[in-house]
Amino acid sequence: MTGMTTDVPAQELSPTPRSTIRRGSERARADRAELWAVLDAGLVCHLSTVVDGAPLVLPTGYGRDGDTLYLHGSTGARSLRAAASGMEVCVAVTLLDGVVYARSVFHHSMNYRSAVIHGTAVRIDDPDAKMHGLRVLTEHLAPGSWDHTRLPNAKEFAATAVLALDLSEAAVKVRSGPPGDDPADEATDLVWAGVLPIRQVWGEPQSAAAHAVPAHVTARAATAPDR
Amino acid sequence: MTGMTTDVPAQELSPTPRSTIRRGSERARADRAELWAVLDAGLVCHLSTVVDGAPLVLPTGYGRDGDTLYLHGSTGARSLRAAASGMEVCVAVTLLDGVVYARSVFHHSMNYRSAVIHGTAVRIDDPDAKMHGLRVLTEHLAPGSWDHTRLPNAKEFAATAVLALDLSEAAVKVRSGPPGDDPADEATDLVWAGVLPIRQVWGEPQSAAAHAVPAHVTARAATAPDR
Repeated sequence: MTGMTTDVPAQELSPTPRSTIRRGSERARADRAELWAVLDAGLVCHLSTVVDGAPLVLPTGYGRDGDTLYLHGSTGARSLRAAASGMEVCVAVTLLDGVVYARSVFHHSMNYRSAVIHGTAVRIDDPDAKMHGLRVLTEHLAPGSWDHTRLPNAKEFAATAVLALDLSEAAVKVRSGPPGDDPADEATDLVWAGVLPIRQVWGEPQSAAAHAVPAHVTARAATAPDR
Repeated sequence: MTGMTTDVPAQELSPTPRSTIRRGSERARADRAELWAVLDAGLVCHLSTVVDGAPLVLPTGYGRDGDTLYLHGSTGARSLRAAASGMEVCVAVTLLDGVVYARSVFHHSMNYRSAVIHGTAVRIDDPDAKMHGLRVLTEHLAPGSWDHTRLPNAKEFAATAVLALDLSEAAVKVRSGPPGDDPADEATDLVWAGVLPIRQVWGEPQSAAAHAVPAHVTARAATAPDR
């Protein structure tokens, strides 16, 4: 099972040693558009920081505007405080596309799209820039909600920290297609091999208010989540 | 958007300060069975290590046996080498269950199940114990494959590092249900609010070999991936 364990990521996209994919380099993608596509298709990232000398990884929402990734959270959250302290962070977005059944245990794998970003996050204090970041975050999580719902009041605005992370040092890795078995195993052809695809789907909207489900929600429900 | 940004996780499960959930503690789960359920339902974890002083987070497969989490990868992978060096690691498994549309931008959120584990990973060198770990990993990724496909040969076995991480210091956080709007927003009742559920589904098996799709694969395809 060579699996998904990568040794980080891609060339034009990321010229630093740590963002150059070493293992499974045939899966590396060097096009910035592919980075954007992975980020735009995901909903949750995993944000890794170092707290008291130990790694801490937590799931959190995000949003992208050009080559800026926005993160946010409570001003009191340890992970956000660590990320905003000028220390380096690492962010991963992973989309799972299938389980790869090979003829050998060793070549079992997953099909996936993955982005890993390295950098230093900056806390945004300028009110207009911060509000823009919140809008980007909201529209990524729930497209249409910014214009449909009550915007942050002063207290909510103050309680939320917004961070910006530049996407310049990033790596993208994609695996797709059938298993990569050894020729000997393919030749003996003893067992089935193939891919069991996996995908995300929306369910029916569950209303918590006595209003019709708005068009921006019904339209979304008709699409694939990892668009 | 209070979102998913947590400040780590739960009581009986995890008595250490860093594994005690501080933010959104009403979402904390203290039952070890809930930790196991989240881990058993996921397919990919995010493994965070510290490499050259900076955090590194990568997606990878895993498997669970009792209170041991198994990780694996190429013996040459930096992340695995870092994880096996006796330094602390952090592992997150996250399952996304829905987007929570609130009446205010601030209370937008996600429904999710999340586990975060802290600890020191140990590389397994004993051959029998290592083979057991590989079996656990394989059967988590592809139940039935261990008995159906060619087992690791000596070269493959030597090229794969297997790590064990104890689940004693772990935290589980679950959000479910409708948005938690402010009473004032609920009272004015201006807009729709609710949840757009999200779930994973299997597609049809894609064969890469001229054999019938085996029963252990067709049976799996009839279930929900995040079982």
